[in-house]
Amino acid sequence: MNLKPLGDKVIVEVLSAEEKTKGGIILPDTAKEKPQEAKVIAVGSGKTLENGKVVAPDVKAGDIVIFGKYSGSEVKVDDKEYLIIDADDILAIVK
Amino acid sequence: MNLKPLGDKVIVEVLSAEEKTKGGIILPDTAKEKPQEAKVIAVGSGKTLENGKVVAPDVKAGDIVIFGKYSGSEVKVDDKEYLIIDADDILAIVK
Amino acid sequence: MNLKPLGDKVIVEVLSAEEKTKGGIILPDTAKEKPQEAKVIAVGSGKTLENGKVVAPDVKAGDIVIFGKYSGSEVKVDDKEYLIIDADDILAIVK
Amino acid sequence: MNLKPLGDKVIVEVLSAEEKTKGGIILPDTAKEKPQEAKVIAVGSGKTLENGKVVAPDVKAGDIVIFGKYSGSEVKVDDKEYLIIDADDILAIVK
Amino acid sequence: MNLKPLGDKVIVEVLSAEEKTKGGIILPDTAKEKPQEAKVIAVGSGKTLENGKVVAPDVKAGDIVIFGKYSGSEVKVDDKEYLIIDADDILAIVK
Amino acid sequence: MNLKPLGDKVIVEVLSAEEKTKGGIILPDTAKEKPQEAKVIAVGSGKTLENGKVVAPDVKAGDIVIFGKYSGSEVKVDDKEYLIIDADDILAIVK
Amino acid sequence: MNLKPLGDKVIVEVLSAEEKTKGGIILPDTAKEKPQEAKVIAVGSGKTLENGKVVAPDVKAGDIVIFGKYSGSEVKVDDKEYLIIDADDILAIVK
Repeated sequence: MNLKPLGDKVIVEVLSAEEKTKGGIILPDTAKEKPQEAKVIAVGSGKTLENGKVVAPDVKAGDIVIFGKYSGSEVKVDDKEYLIIDADDILAIVK
Repeated sequence: MNLKPLGDKVIVEVLSAEEKTKGGIILPDTAKEKPQEAKVIAVGSGKTLENGKVVAPDVKAGDIVIFGKYSGSEVKVDDKEYLIIDADDILAIVK
Repeated sequence: MNLKPLGDKVIVEVLSAEEKTKGGIILPDTAKEKPQEAKVIAVGSGKTLENGKVVAPDVKAGDIVIFGKYSGSEVKVDDKEYLIIDADDILAIVK
Repeated sequence: MNLKPLGDKVIVEVLSAEEKTKGGIILPDTAKEKPQEAKVIAVGSGKTLENGKVVAPDVKAGDIVIFGKYSGSEVKVDDKEYLIIDADDILAIVK
Repeated sequence: MNLKPLGDKVIVEVLSAEEKTKGGIILPDTAKEKPQEAKVIAVGSGKTLENGKVVAPDVKAGDIVIFGKYSGSEVKVDDKEYLIIDADDILAIVK
Repeated sequence: MNLKPLGDKVIVEVLSAEEKTKGGIILPDTAKEKPQEAKVIAVGSGKTLENGKVVAPDVKAGDIVIFGKYSGSEVKVDDKEYLIIDADDILAIVK
Repeated sequence: MNLKPLGDKVIVEVLSAEEKTKGGIILPDTAKEKPQEAKVIAVGSGKTLENGKVVAPDVKAGDIVIFGKYSGSEVKVDDKEYLIIDADDILAIVK
């Protein structure tokens, strides 16, 4: 993939129904805050703290994650749709 | 369970009436801010402070807790419903 | 009591008219911000500052306190009603 | 007085017309933000900074002060009315 | 003057038309944010930073200043009107 | 170019359809938050942290970037239109 | 000029059409956030960070600058109009 996210941004590919993990995770359609299941494609170097340290996101390319707020920016690369989201919007990793 | 919460997120299982602790705790139905009783299932590594330190949540898997705001994200794993909440929304541990 | 408050939470028991201290303190019914007199039942370990230090609340179990905002979460244990409030909402200790 | 304010709280007694200082200070009735003249009765230990230091309020019991916002909590002790306010709401000391 | 401002408060006397400096400064009546010309009467010890240091205001008694927001508290001492404002609301010193 | 951005500002030239990279990136017209593809022209020295350190933006002149919020200030230099944006509004670099 | 800006304030003189730099910079009349071209007249000593350090603005008297938000305070000195703005509102220097 030819996109490198900056700062605490993470590029994810939202999983379609048939791509979803076999872990039995179901995200309710009716939830007020729609959580989404996605695959991490690329990860920024992290957030810069006020003391100058950079904190890398807790996820890496290939992780399957659940993120809580559908507020990212859509982008289409090589005919695939991706979402650029904040690392802080990722709630959990599917092991 | 195959979900690993990130940062200061905590995965809890809201207790049904018959699963509730025998400690005599009753959470009023009519309260404006509905507190909930739940069992902690998994705990993130903690919140990162501005000096780079990570502060682990004060709860661990298995704890029975009361949390104050019903604002988490619902997720269903192996036919059980869970809630992913912020550690700061947990008010107290039932001993 | 079988509830352990977390962080800067404090569990209090709001005093009924006949339980009130004999110090002559009267909290006006008509005040816009209703202050309440209560007995401290249990105290969390404190608030975590950005440098990682934990600052314990300035009250301890048994203190009679006045707190300013009626914004806690109600909980009933062994048929007694309690309120879980923030330590910062406590205005003063009755000596 | 049997009330000990916490943190940066200050207990004051609002001065009635005849108790006011002879310094010639007049607070306009019509001002949008009604400043009040009051006598400091008791002072909390101070505000805790993010580095853990406690900064004591700049006033002491007995000071006559002007405070800017009428937003404290009323309390009546031994038939006298007091106000519990934030130290930051005190604008000036009457010398 | 018998008022000692606290913290980053500054007591100023708004200049009347005939008292204004001869520097040729004119503050437009029609400006949205009405800047005011005033004489500094008394200055607080300063703002306390999060590391505990106190930063004294950049003005001293006698300075003629321009301040940007008419949001202070009016007070009348010995028949003269004053305004207690925040040091941060002072835009410039007239030299 | 004769404009030097300050602080964490970045001057970019929004790419027209025919100038766009051949990487196959398509930014949907209908997205709520319209991401834009642009070429970085000049970069400020960076954001000043609370400890006084300056953190340089993660992009350099010549980079092709995607930025998420169309909130910059338009400016025209030598008949070309540019946008002055915040470095934090840049989501990713096109490699 | 007899005005000394305080803190991170900067006094600028908005350039009229005929005074504008010959660099070919055109600021669109229709832009939502109207950028302005101006000459820096005087610069405050800078912003005080939470650790007590003062960060001087990145501009000096004589600089031609572009600033993004028309939110300063107007002042007229010796029949010339000036604007007192925040240093952070300056987007770029015209070289």
